[in-house]
Amino acid sequence: MRKVAVAGVGLVKVSEHWGKPIGALFADAALQAMKDAGTDGVDGLYVSNMSGALMQEQLSMGALMADAIAKPGLSAVRVEAGSASGGVAFHEAVKAVASGYSDCVLVAGVEKMSDVLPEVVTKSLVMEEEQEYSAYTGVTKPGLSAMLHRLYLDLYAEPSEVGMMAVQSHENAVGCKHAQYPFRMSIERAMDSPMEADPIHMMECAGVGDGAAAIVLVPADTEGVEVAATTVATDYCSLPMREDPLTLGAVKTAAEKAYKLAAVKPGDIDLVEVQDDFTINGVLSLESLGLVEPGKAAKYVAEGGSARDGELPTNTFGGLKARGNPLGATGVYQIAEVALQLRGAAGDHQVEDANVGLAQNMGGLGSTCAVTILRRLGR
Amino acid sequence: MRKVAVAGVGLVKVSEHWGKPIGALFADAALQAMKDAGTDGVDGLYVSNMSGALMQEQLSMGALMADAIAKPGLSAVRVEAGSASGGVAFHEAVKAVASGYSDCVLVAGVEKMSDVLPEVVTKSLVMEEEQEYSAYTGVTKPGLSAMLHRLYLDLYAEPSEVGMMAVQSHENAVGCKHAQYPFRMSIERAMDSPMEADPIHMMECAGVGDGAAAIVLVPADTEGVEVAATTVATDYCSLPMREDPLTLGAVKTAAEKAYKLAAVKPGDIDLVEVQDDFTINGVLSLESLGLVEPGKAAKYVAEGGSARDGELPTNTFGGLKARGNPLGATGVYQIAEVALQLRGAAGDHQVEDANVGLAQNMGGLGSTCAVTILRRLGR
Repeated sequence: MRKVAVAGVGLVKVSEHWGKPIGALFADAALQAMKDAGTDGVDGLYVSNMSGALMQEQLSMGALMADAIAKPGLSAVRVEAGSASGGVAFHEAVKAVASGYSDCVLVAGVEKMSDVLPEVVTKSLVMEEEQEYSAYTGVTKPGLSAMLHRLYLDLYAEPSEVGMMAVQSHENAVGCKHAQYPFRMSIERAMDSPMEADPIHMMECAGVGDGAAAIVLVPADTEGVEVAATTVATDYCSLPMREDPLTLGAVKTAAEKAYKLAAVKPGDIDLVEVQDDFTINGVLSLESLGLVEPGKAAKYVAEGGSARDGELPTNTFGGLKARGNPLGATGVYQIAEVALQLRGAAGDHQVEDANVGLAQNMGGLGSTCAVTILRRLGR
Repeated sequence: MRKVAVAGVGLVKVSEHWGKPIGALFADAALQAMKDAGTDGVDGLYVSNMSGALMQEQLSMGALMADAIAKPGLSAVRVEAGSASGGVAFHEAVKAVASGYSDCVLVAGVEKMSDVLPEVVTKSLVMEEEQEYSAYTGVTKPGLSAMLHRLYLDLYAEPSEVGMMAVQSHENAVGCKHAQYPFRMSIERAMDSPMEADPIHMMECAGVGDGAAAIVLVPADTEGVEVAATTVATDYCSLPMREDPLTLGAVKTAAEKAYKLAAVKPGDIDLVEVQDDFTINGVLSLESLGLVEPGKAAKYVAEGGSARDGELPTNTFGGLKARGNPLGATGVYQIAEVALQLRGAAGDHQVEDANVGLAQNMGGLGSTCAVTILRRLGR
C-alpha cells in the first residue's frame, strides 16, 4: 500500500453565497487546492455532498463537478455519509492513491444551504436518522442532541461548562478569513440566547451556510504532510439501540483503529478538529476520541484545556460553530485546517510544534464517523 | 496493487416489494452474497443507492445498511453517481481491496421505487441532468433520450430495428428467477405500445421496480472470477455541450481504459451487459463500447448478433428492460450476472465458453459510465 500525502488545500469562506451556483462554489475551492499543490493534473475526483438531492434537486455531482472544474471526462464520484460525507470522501480518496488507481486525486466537499427554506435544512438533517424508527415521528436533530445534552448535564456538568465549547470555538475563529462567524462570544451571550431544543441554546448550534473545501492527494514523499491514518466506522442510527448513549461508538471504534494505524497514542495528538455542530457533540467527541476522560470534557473545555494555547488545541479555526458547517463540506474543511497547521501555514491561528493532528467528522448523532490523523514529515 | 476477485453474489428478484422496508430488501441480497462467498467476515461495506433521499427521505445508508445486515460498527459508505451508482460503487469497493484497506468487502445496491408516486420517479431521473441548464426546463429523461433516438433514426435505422433491443432483452429474461418481466415480447407489441416520448414507445423503456444485488470481493487467488478491469469516466451532463450526441464519451473513455487495463480487445469479450434503460441507450452503448461499428448496432441487434447464442451475447438475463432497473442497484446486478456466467452458474441462461465478460453501467444520458471487465481464472 502506498503512503499518501496532502499536496494542496483550498478553502472558501463559509457564508451566504447567493450569487454563486453550487458548481462555481465548488470550483473556487478546487482550483485553489490545485494551485496550492502546483498541479493541474488530477486523475480522480471525489465529491462530498450531503443534501444536494433535496436542496438543489441535483444528483450525479461527480460528473457535474468534473465539468465545473473544466475536466469533463474525469473519473468522478459522489460520496455521502450524512454530515460525515467529507471525512468519508477523504477516506475513499486516500484509497484511490494508496491502491495505485490514481496518482493525484482531488477530494472536495460542497454544500449550499442558504438558497433553501429553513424547514428544508431541518428535514435534511433528520434524514441522517432512521426514517422508519425515529425520523418519521417528527423529531429533529437538535431535539435528539438535546436528549444527550440533558443526560450529560444530569450526570456530569453545568450548562455553562458545556456552553464553553461554543465560546472557545468563536475565540479561535477571530481573524480567520474562511470563517463564517469570526467574532468573540461570551458565555453569557450563549446562555442568554433562546432555546433551540431545551437545554440547547441557539448559540450552542452551528449555523446554516454555504461552503466548499478541497484537498489534493498524491503519493507521499519524505517531506510534507502525510496521511498517517484514515478510518471510518458506523453505529446504530437510532439512539435507543446503543448501550450507552453518551459513548459515541463509531467515534471510539474509528479513533482506536486510527491510533493503531498511525502508531500514536491519544497523548501524542498536538491538535484536534471535532464535530461541534452542537456543543454537546463536541464535548462527547473529545471523550469518545479518548482525548479526555468520560464525563470530564465539559469541565476540561471550561478550564481552558482545549484553548488554542492550552493542553489540547481544539477547533483551531473556529470549528463547526464559528468557521461554519456546510454539511458535506465540513469534513474536508477540518482536514485541510489540520494540514495547514502541520505545514506551519496557519498564520495567527498557528499551534506551536504541531506535528500530529486529528480530524473527527461525524454524521447524525454519531451513526458514521471518519477519523483522520495527519503527520508532519521530515522532522 | 492487489488483484481482486468476486467471491460471491446475491440477487433479489426485481419486483414490487411492498412488504419490505429498504433495509430488509438490502439484507436479502447481502446475506445471500455472503452465504455464496462462504464468509461472514466482511470488513467494509459499499452501498449504492441513487434516490433514497427523495424516495425514502433517507440519507446515511452506509450506517443504516451496516445495521440492517447485523454489522453495526462496520466501515461503510454510500456511493452515488445517478443510474451508474452500482458500477461506481463496485469500482470503489475494488480499490478498498486492491489497496489493502480491506480484505473482504461487500458492495450492494438497493433501490425501492414502488412506494412512491410516478412523478417522484420522473423527478428523480431528471436530477441526473444539470438542474441549472436543462432539468429546470421541465424536460424529462425519456424526453432527452427521445432526441438521441430521433437523430439515430434519421441517420441509421428503422424504428423496429432499434426496438429489437427490447425484444432481445425480454427473450433472454424468460426463465430468469430474478427478472421483473420474464416474458417474451414481439416487436409488434413494442411498436404498438403507446409513445412514452416520441419516437420512444413505452415497451422500449425499463420499468419501475424494487431490487437489491450484492457482491463480495476478496483478494484474487488462482481460480475463480477476477476483476480484470474497473474504470469510471464522466462526460458533460448537458447534451448540447457534447461534440457528437450519438457518441457517448464517458462510455468510450471508460471502455478504452478498461480494455487496456485488462489487456483485451473488444473482440475478446464473450458477453456483455449494457445499459438498455431505453432501447436507444442500449444501441448507442454497444457502439460507444467499441463492440459494434457506429451507426450499425440497431441492425446488428435486429439481425441476431446480440442474441444469447449470437456473436455477442448481450443482456443475458434480460438487461434493464426485462430483468428490471432498480436504479442504484442496477450496476451491481449487471456485474453479478457477468460473474455467474463466468462461473458457469447461469443455468438456462449460460453462454458457452464464457471467459471474459463486460458490464457497462451508465448514469443520466451518459454523464457517468462505469465499465467492469471480469475474467475467468484457472483456464
